[in-house]
Amino acid sequence: MKQLLKTLDFTHFVVKEFVNAGDTVIDATAGNGYDTLFLAELVGERGKVFAFDIQQKAIQSTEGLLREQGLFPRVQLIRDGHEHIEEYVKEEVSAVMFNLGYLPGSDHRIVTQPETTIKGVKAALTMLSPGGVITLVVYTGHPGGQEEWPFIEHYVKSLAKNNYRVLLYKFLNTDKSPFMVAVEKR
Amino acid sequence: MKQLLKTLDFTHFVVKEFVNAGDTVIDATAGNGYDTLFLAELVGERGKVFAFDIQQKAIQSTEGLLREQGLFPRVQLIRDGHEHIEEYVKEEVSAVMFNLGYLPGSDHRIVTQPETTIKGVKAALTMLSPGGVITLVVYTGHPGGQEEWPFIEHYVKSLAKNNYRVLLYKFLNTDKSPFMVAVEKR
Repeated sequence: MKQLLKTLDFTHFVVKEFVNAGDTVIDATAGNGYDTLFLAELVGERGKVFAFDIQQKAIQSTEGLLREQGLFPRVQLIRDGHEHIEEYVKEEVSAVMFNLGYLPGSDHRIVTQPETTIKGVKAALTMLSPGGVITLVVYTGHPGGQEEWPFIEHYVKSLAKNNYRVLLYKFLNTDKSPFMVAVEKR
Repeated sequence: MKQLLKTLDFTHFVVKEFVNAGDTVIDATAGNGYDTLFLAELVGERGKVFAFDIQQKAIQSTEGLLREQGLFPRVQLIRDGHEHIEEYVKEEVSAVMFNLGYLPGSDHRIVTQPETTIKGVKAALTMLSPGGVITLVVYTGHPGGQEEWPFIEHYVKSLAKNNYRVLLYKFLNTDKSPFMVAVEKR
């Protein structure tokens, strides 16, 4: 029996469609490193993943996971916020993944903020190659999560439809599940 | 270059996952017959599609299309509203597809109504086998379309999450594209 893809599985399903071996991509919120690992597998040996996080703990977890899997050579970890990705990545990218909320298993007071998130998304859109995609997985169950989303929603809804397609993937009869927004650059 | 699936393509992608050869399924709004044809292909020779529409023109278009494709033997056309599907279909079904709005190319004053749509969806949920799915493609560009959706939204949000999963698939930076709601019975 098949079922509707969960938000995180659908996010990976989307990113897989847009990323080819050899691409450069960005994990804007490395967290525990699972998306960094997923991206490192997708881009292959000749590809490159830039992974950002402001927390040292996240950088360490991600490095540990990627070394364990033998994929660390294709990853560059940067301890800085995703509002600064343009300072580090000088080439076009085919995908940028954001997880909005807090680092699981860490200090829940350290959460992403709408101002820096929107800066990060704007930067990501300029760096994205045509036919590339940004994914934002939005958690609203934590304090501040309810406040962040309306700012992001307002911003992504304003994107010109001739240049971008903005998709919402959301389970409606639950408050706690994360939902996903994908922005495709035409 | 891949792209985000359009709403109608994603709807077919979902239904394909849930329907097997030999199943019985329902097209609750036959319209021009495209979903009836899609379902008839999915269920195969031993399957059955019940297709409903209140407009004679829709019944005729659908019959014409299905005969043309040689798949009419596996289809039963019923000229009645989808609020009465239980009177005609006495077996479990694995999928029910609804298109909410008007029949393209026909009288735009004849549109689906929230009361009958909700009756139809409720009936569909009772007839659905566990692991089955209902899809609702919602057009809001026509007069009355804006009014119908809040009723449907309120209803599907109220479905118990232990029994159903309710997914919204919607493009955010356009007003005119249809969006899709899928209800999976657990």
